Amino acid sequence: LTVAYDGSGFHGWQKQCPPGEAPLRTVAGTIEQTLQRLVGQPITLYGSSRTDAGVHAKGQLAQFDAATRIPIKAFAQALTGRLPRDIDIRDARIVPDDFHLIHEVHSKQYRYRIFNSSTRPLDRRLYTYHNWMDIDIGRMADAARRFVGTHDFAGFACAKHGRLSTVRTIYRCAIEQPPDDPEVHIVIEGDGFLYNMVRIVAGTLLDIGRGRFEPHVIDHVLESKDRQAAGPTLPPEGLWLEWVRLGENAGTA
Amino acid sequence: LTVAYDGSGFHGWQKQCPPGEAPLRTVAGTIEQTLQRLVGQPITLYGSSRTDAGVHAKGQLAQFDAATRIPIKAFAQALTGRLPRDIDIRDARIVPDDFHLIHEVHSKQYRYRIFNSSTRPLDRRLYTYHNWMDIDIGRMADAARRFVGTHDFAGFACAKHGRLSTVRTIYRCAIEQPPDDPEVHIVIEGDGFLYNMVRIVAGTLLDIGRGRFEPHVIDHVLESKDRQAAGPTLPPEGLWLEWVRLGENAGTA
Repeated sequence: LTVAYDGSGFHGWQKQCPPGEAPLRTVAGTIEQTLQRLVGQPITLYGSSRTDAGVHAKGQLAQFDAATRIPIKAFAQALTGRLPRDIDIRDARIVPDDFHLIHEVHSKQYRYRIFNSSTRPLDRRLYTYHNWMDIDIGRMADAARRFVGTHDFAGFACAKHGRLSTVRTIYRCAIEQPPDDPEVHIVIEGDGFLYNMVRIVAGTLLDIGRGRFEPHVIDHVLESKDRQAAGPTLPPEGLWLEWVRLGENAGTA
Repeated sequence: LTVAYDGSGFHGWQKQCPPGEAPLRTVAGTIEQTLQRLVGQPITLYGSSRTDAGVHAKGQLAQFDAATRIPIKAFAQALTGRLPRDIDIRDARIVPDDFHLIHEVHSKQYRYRIFNSSTRPLDRRLYTYHNWMDIDIGRMADAARRFVGTHDFAGFACAKHGRLSTVRTIYRCAIEQPPDDPEVHIVIEGDGFLYNMVRIVAGTLLDIGRGRFEPHVIDHVLESKDRQAAGPTLPPEGLWLEWVRLGENAGTA
């Protein structure tokens, strides 16, 4: 499944709840329940990225096993029609029985949206981060380029990242400005991201734009792996998972 | 005051509550409470337009009387800083003591935003109306022009409009499409609007776009004043009060 959602009303993509406690509303849990009614059997849904509470997605990928007679061409629309308005299933495809989504991920792109204006974002306040201070976009772009390549991102991760390796490869990191709009976007594409990594990258780039740090602080944090030398973790509402790309031969039977 | 707000969380601009009942959250009530704490005296706020629950505004105007030492240049920011995130005071000006806002209104512009796509609006679902059917923009533009002029709009008003005269002058009515975006906007400017008028105008134009009516149905409804011959009242979330213009000499002492 290709899944888009407004993360505002969810406790993230998925959340383990202690046994006995009421399950929280999650994206995966909501889709699982609807799928179970649609195909008439228990479903476990596996996502490519565990987005946090408040984080949004345009192109999350997810996988499940089921036997159903619903034609695959009609499946996305049939499922969307039964889901609440904050989830949209954009596509559905059949994959081979031995397909394991998370092994097939080649790269992902995230976008952090900053609403850069002295006026409040109002209808975008749950979808952007509001910055009202002057920022230097050129400095931010200079700093963003320094993330490209294979680096140890331990300095840009939340301490409880829970991963054996903190080495990731960033293919692209750039600043984009939609025309005639107050937004400034930090766009980052890589083979994988650590816990809170994009939000810390965004917080560091924003602090560089505001003049608190020089662009070369990026090189220093990558080298020293010192989380304290980086900027703050920006809030989840500005973060969008844009797309997940699979390897070239993924999903062909 | 020039006031922008996200109407999603409000029971409209203002709402009379039966005595003894808990007051509902309204835009005017929220600003009044905050103003009272800011200037230290009871405040009654008068708006130029009573927007319904769920309707948004970029440039509502409102007026109040108070004695305060807060400099007028700093007033909008001081007030905004004390208000919840779904209200933004964009400007504040001093007017003469005998100024009566609703007598000074020359024209207003509303925008009805249609999210025209087979995919769901997600982060715009509280700010647009979702249309997934094919529409003919040219037909809608042809029909929209027919509203321009001075007409009796009784056929485009909710029965409980409560006004003595249903004659209004429309200066402009057009279809706009933001570039590289799935939205289609119905923009209407006039000297005043009846209860639900813009939402019924939008519903009729959308039905014309969908092929349910011919563009000349507008002329028929204007002539016959037959509400049943017009299209449905579209929901409030797509409606935005864009601006309110005052007469040329309004507010000069």
